[in-house]
Amino acid sequence: MNKTYMQRAIELAKLCLLSDDVPVGAVVVKGGEIIGEGYNKRELLNDPTAHAEIIAIKAAAERLGSWHLDDCELYVTLEPCPMCAGAIINSRIKTVVFGAYEAKSGSCSAESVVNLFSLGYNHKPEVYGGICENETANLITEFFKNKRT
Amino acid sequence: MNKTYMQRAIELAKLCLLSDDVPVGAVVVKGGEIIGEGYNKRELLNDPTAHAEIIAIKAAAERLGSWHLDDCELYVTLEPCPMCAGAIINSRIKTVVFGAYEAKSGSCSAESVVNLFSLGYNHKPEVYGGICENETANLITEFFKNKRT
Repeated sequence: MNKTYMQRAIELAKLCLLSDDVPVGAVVVKGGEIIGEGYNKRELLNDPTAHAEIIAIKAAAERLGSWHLDDCELYVTLEPCPMCAGAIINSRIKTVVFGAYEAKSGSCSAESVVNLFSLGYNHKPEVYGGICENETANLITEFFKNKRT
Repeated sequence: MNKTYMQRAIELAKLCLLSDDVPVGAVVVKGGEIIGEGYNKRELLNDPTAHAEIIAIKAAAERLGSWHLDDCELYVTLEPCPMCAGAIINSRIKTVVFGAYEAKSGSCSAESVVNLFSLGYNHKPEVYGGICENETANLITEFFKNKRT
């Protein structure tokens, strides 16, 4: 694990603020190189599937010309939702590193709704949660604080 | 529920055979009209997220100009995987009608890996499984039988 990639994911998350999207950023890394990046564009594109992780995974698969992301790591600023955890399982990503925990929709830890990676699917990535937790959680809390004021 | 829409999903599933993709088709219906269609293009596009449901949901959201698919029904020939079940939750689809059960990756019934719609997420669609079950299950079993021979 290398926190430099989480810093890049945080930079990407800040781009969400331009479209009033919940700030979440993600990068896919293979062999020390970033091969896919994404940030949440749900509001920008009116697309319920346009989460940071989905966009980064699609970009990485396009770059590799393969849907198998076996030796790849995903860094994301917020605990993935079930859709994104499912995309991680489907693409066989080896390692998931996430920032802030997400109690309402998080699907990758026992502390949240469910840990999909602990169930009987045919792929179980390694997962590290709470990385750069203060900085990544602040992105979300500041966003919703500003929405209320 | 109207089995005519499942018949259209079955027609779409058959298009997957042109690219040797696992045959799964899906349609999104609102007010009696099909507003989004999709079929599995994982191999065709080398995209791990290009499942029938994701493509149909994106198409419906684009058509409506909104990521809220509140009053919509999704018809799909195979029980959704966790990624697609998560996309259904994220898009607030009201009703899910699926054909064949899928023991290995299915995520919408107690008979499969998990029923994500029974957990603590902020949206719980109604779900009807096993609709046109023989016809939809045959699509999958015939596909894998032909792969082996």
